[in-house]
Amino acid sequence: MTSDTAVRVGWVGCGRMGTAMASRLVLAGHDVSVTNRTRAKAEVLGALGATVVDTPRDLASCDVVFVMVSGNADLVEVVSGTEGLLSDPATAPGIIVDCSTVSSDTSASVRAACTSRGAAFLAAPVSGNPKVVAAGQLTLAVSGTRDAFDTVRPFLEQLGQGVTYVGDDEVARLVKICHNMMLGIVTQAMAEITVLAERGGIKRSAFLEFLNHSVMGSTFTRYKTPAFVNLDFTPTFTPTLLRKDFDLGMAAAYELDVPMPVSALCTEIVKATIGAGYVDQDFAVLLLEAARGAGLTMEPENVAVDDGLSGETR
Amino acid sequence: MTSDTAVRVGWVGCGRMGTAMASRLVLAGHDVSVTNRTRAKAEVLGALGATVVDTPRDLASCDVVFVMVSGNADLVEVVSGTEGLLSDPATAPGIIVDCSTVSSDTSASVRAACTSRGAAFLAAPVSGNPKVVAAGQLTLAVSGTRDAFDTVRPFLEQLGQGVTYVGDDEVARLVKICHNMMLGIVTQAMAEITVLAERGGIKRSAFLEFLNHSVMGSTFTRYKTPAFVNLDFTPTFTPTLLRKDFDLGMAAAYELDVPMPVSALCTEIVKATIGAGYVDQDFAVLLLEAARGAGLTMEPENVAVDDGLSGETR
Amino acid sequence: MTSDTAVRVGWVGCGRMGTAMASRLVLAGHDVSVTNRTRAKAEVLGALGATVVDTPRDLASCDVVFVMVSGNADLVEVVSGTEGLLSDPATAPGIIVDCSTVSSDTSASVRAACTSRGAAFLAAPVSGNPKVVAAGQLTLAVSGTRDAFDTVRPFLEQLGQGVTYVGDDEVARLVKICHNMMLGIVTQAMAEITVLAERGGIKRSAFLEFLNHSVMGSTFTRYKTPAFVNLDFTPTFTPTLLRKDFDLGMAAAYELDVPMPVSALCTEIVKATIGAGYVDQDFAVLLLEAARGAGLTMEPENVAVDDGLSGETR
Amino acid sequence: MTSDTAVRVGWVGCGRMGTAMASRLVLAGHDVSVTNRTRAKAEVLGALGATVVDTPRDLASCDVVFVMVSGNADLVEVVSGTEGLLSDPATAPGIIVDCSTVSSDTSASVRAACTSRGAAFLAAPVSGNPKVVAAGQLTLAVSGTRDAFDTVRPFLEQLGQGVTYVGDDEVARLVKICHNMMLGIVTQAMAEITVLAERGGIKRSAFLEFLNHSVMGSTFTRYKTPAFVNLDFTPTFTPTLLRKDFDLGMAAAYELDVPMPVSALCTEIVKATIGAGYVDQDFAVLLLEAARGAGLTMEPENVAVDDGLSGETR
Repeated sequence: MTSDTAVRVGWVGCGRMGTAMASRLVLAGHDVSVTNRTRAKAEVLGALGATVVDTPRDLASCDVVFVMVSGNADLVEVVSGTEGLLSDPATAPGIIVDCSTVSSDTSASVRAACTSRGAAFLAAPVSGNPKVVAAGQLTLAVSGTRDAFDTVRPFLEQLGQGVTYVGDDEVARLVKICHNMMLGIVTQAMAEITVLAERGGIKRSAFLEFLNHSVMGSTFTRYKTPAFVNLDFTPTFTPTLLRKDFDLGMAAAYELDVPMPVSALCTEIVKATIGAGYVDQDFAVLLLEAARGAGLTMEPENVAVDDGLSGETR
Repeated sequence: MTSDTAVRVGWVGCGRMGTAMASRLVLAGHDVSVTNRTRAKAEVLGALGATVVDTPRDLASCDVVFVMVSGNADLVEVVSGTEGLLSDPATAPGIIVDCSTVSSDTSASVRAACTSRGAAFLAAPVSGNPKVVAAGQLTLAVSGTRDAFDTVRPFLEQLGQGVTYVGDDEVARLVKICHNMMLGIVTQAMAEITVLAERGGIKRSAFLEFLNHSVMGSTFTRYKTPAFVNLDFTPTFTPTLLRKDFDLGMAAAYELDVPMPVSALCTEIVKATIGAGYVDQDFAVLLLEAARGAGLTMEPENVAVDDGLSGETR
Repeated sequence: MTSDTAVRVGWVGCGRMGTAMASRLVLAGHDVSVTNRTRAKAEVLGALGATVVDTPRDLASCDVVFVMVSGNADLVEVVSGTEGLLSDPATAPGIIVDCSTVSSDTSASVRAACTSRGAAFLAAPVSGNPKVVAAGQLTLAVSGTRDAFDTVRPFLEQLGQGVTYVGDDEVARLVKICHNMMLGIVTQAMAEITVLAERGGIKRSAFLEFLNHSVMGSTFTRYKTPAFVNLDFTPTFTPTLLRKDFDLGMAAAYELDVPMPVSALCTEIVKATIGAGYVDQDFAVLLLEAARGAGLTMEPENVAVDDGLSGETR
Repeated sequence: MTSDTAVRVGWVGCGRMGTAMASRLVLAGHDVSVTNRTRAKAEVLGALGATVVDTPRDLASCDVVFVMVSGNADLVEVVSGTEGLLSDPATAPGIIVDCSTVSSDTSASVRAACTSRGAAFLAAPVSGNPKVVAAGQLTLAVSGTRDAFDTVRPFLEQLGQGVTYVGDDEVARLVKICHNMMLGIVTQAMAEITVLAERGGIKRSAFLEFLNHSVMGSTFTRYKTPAFVNLDFTPTFTPTLLRKDFDLGMAAAYELDVPMPVSALCTEIVKATIGAGYVDQDFAVLLLEAARGAGLTMEPENVAVDDGLSGETR
């Protein structure tokens, strides 16, 4: 791949995240072929300049193929299925990069299938939402062989920032889970201290403005701020999805014999939040549960708040 | 104060933090007079261009006086003592801005003393260390009257970034405590997930590089990274000091009837860390306690790690 | 006090607990004089054979006086007030035994007042309710001088079972707080596992019957069982009172530098239960909060359940 | 089974617990045949009057067979193996009662195997140690058909006290796990409050004497008291075994969507205790970890303490 422009790139999966990510490669001028189970969704990228093909098998001759599908079964299907990336006995992609959220076990078995066909496999799970992608702030933890990583790195760096090679095999899966546990813990911490501050007479908007400017401020604390201030819980990530990551994390903590008291407690708090009925809203509803325990009925402050995602730079 | 250059600024307290902060005002060209119990420490600022005076009383005619001392008793002394800022019956400073860490009760009584002499009082506690100050990343939460805040705002913005007016009276004290509780929780979260990642075969340097680039990354996570990677626990903030903030926070949670399960658990973890003998080291030793529970003996990775404080921009 | 029958016993405080306790001494044939702020309440004991007097001062010549009042201020009043036990300059009781729930500080100051008048003072806080008293199952932790304890021991053993001398000064106060923290933790544990069992298809009555028969069964688990099975939350002890004990316990843990993670977490859970509106019911409502988090709407099983308090023997 | 004496009883598994339990049936005069993989261990019961046979197959014609083996694989082997209870095509036991600790899945598959041969299967897991058995205080939770339970009840009541029918199928497995989680939580609670009391100047022996006499006292708190007072951690149940039960419990909590914050925290504390090196000692070492966090070096009090197991009555 001496010249990026000569590289043929494939993309499997044109859901909201997949489309947001793939469009960055298309708009950067790469030669991208895309496919999706429901072809209509792929046409959005076609309109931007991508070539739309029927099935993953049509991408078998690509140099690198990215996969962004919804889970274990779909990954197996698009790689090893009858119309999958490896279904053409004559050829297989050079490198397959999976950005989906799948289990380490599934990842390992798909890797083995790829390896047996001479295709390198990289695990590159992402965390975030389309708005974060659009702001250029998606981060990628990648595991597999170092060589394959070095080859696709230029493309990964166009998908987002902070592309990090974290080791062999499936370890990137664990990195993502760790990251998402921190995301849950930080949200619970924000909920607790925001309620304390409000009970102490401080507006949420003022408190979080301070926090966001302080050394504790992060892209994440900034983009959760509008929900905390104005109580708009349109979901970016639901308690149910967060619980799934905590469950995976606690399962890893069990297998690796790592005590994680705060993570365990947050797992139970998230479970209780779901049990209390918060299923379809954004997981920022942890704030409402914290307020309930304080006997506090929160009202929206109706203040314009910057979510920190307006530009590509912080 | 129509022209900043005409404003006479006083500064009380030339410890490590006070000197780092005051030097920013001096170097910005303001007319600053400084005083410190041990006069020699004040001479450092004198060498930079400040006027060194004997006692706080000598600053009574200043337009604005900043105070950065070590606690309740010292604040009372430098304001209301026999040589204090209010000890000259003929005159008193226009605005006194206290950046020290003191209790809300002490803050309120000093405020009352100031008000009775016609001096406005602003609570502006800071959190951070001299290196953060030097990097221009100190943040300030300020409470008191809005008028006084608007007047001194230009000076505050030279002390650091993210100057936020959070409300009346002493509420900035609570904001700082909330901030520091989050700092402790985030560190414990980092400790738990870093140990999990390491047990899963991921180098701490790789894991934290990813985390710092991700949406969870903050100035704080970046400047704690060298300690986590190379196990250098030279203190910036000790477990004992962190515990003090957690204790204050839990006391506020008690008075305001706010349940804070994760904060409470972290309070106990910090207590246990101290009980186990970690008194003089940086509170990043929470990592070692987390590793102990996982039966893991950590070794320094001896990798050069950016602490994110090298420049004034992130 | 060579012969018990010759001993003149005083009793101050004829609320529900005081009356239940004092009646045991009266019915045992002792010479008991009683007093209460509202004299009518004392008459109940008068009907049983006690002598009703007007004020604590009238008990100054008793050999031993028990006090069972509602808190710090009342204890100070009945001992050191103008009509108090020590208000007669000519004489003072030999031993004063305080069974109330007061702070260690108040206890120490009342002890000093007694000592200065030659009266021994024993701290003998009790935990329980009138039904427990009637079942002969009240337990007493006692602190003060060993001599005084040995003298009054026969009377204490008529008040309940399990009279234990725990040390000097006010330590019995701490013992009671520790006891009550355990009571809260055990209730939360019962709530969690009962909900788990119910979600697993096991009737609460069957599960708790097993638990009560097992090595984990206690007088306490037995007398909480009816509330858990039939959801009758008529209060014996409210979440608010339980929180008070947890708060005192966590304050002691703070002062004595003892990490108590599970106690701290239960403190927050109790706070949240109160914040959610459970103020006037029995603290067994912890079960309902646990059920809420599991998305479980509990129904009374309407099963007759033995509370274990029907006889004086277990 | 109109007359107990006519019933032919089989027993599989003569480890420490099995022998302690079976000996109660033998000594009660029943006609008991026993078998064990290592025949020598079965001879102990032979000496008491039992008939020793070679394999479980030799018990196929018994009316009721008890099984007490060490785990999933052993249960499958002794029931469905080539020399198992069901290996004789001509006959099978009437009722098989399994007292082992096995998973619900294994229990269900063994039940199916029994049912297909016309043998009733009861899950009757026990918790405790041989000393508890000898004191007649073993408790049994039993699940399966009510008929089978009623039939074997007289025998179960000779094995211990508090025999409780808890429902169909495998639910007794969950009951046992719940019970053991409570056992762990109560021990952690005892550890926390005992350390607090000791830091407050109260001897552990005095504190626990009070607790044991109080409404919180249980057979369990009494038999853990010698370890707490004299720091003799000869194992009855190790942290590793306790962790196994907590892990099973948290797995059930995950599947049944039940938040269990205190149980989850205790799970992590037990994991950390193991990680710190406490593997082979009694799980009462939770006390030592609690003391470590308080900076307290505990010394044995060397006081004779009643463990409450000296007689068959409480």
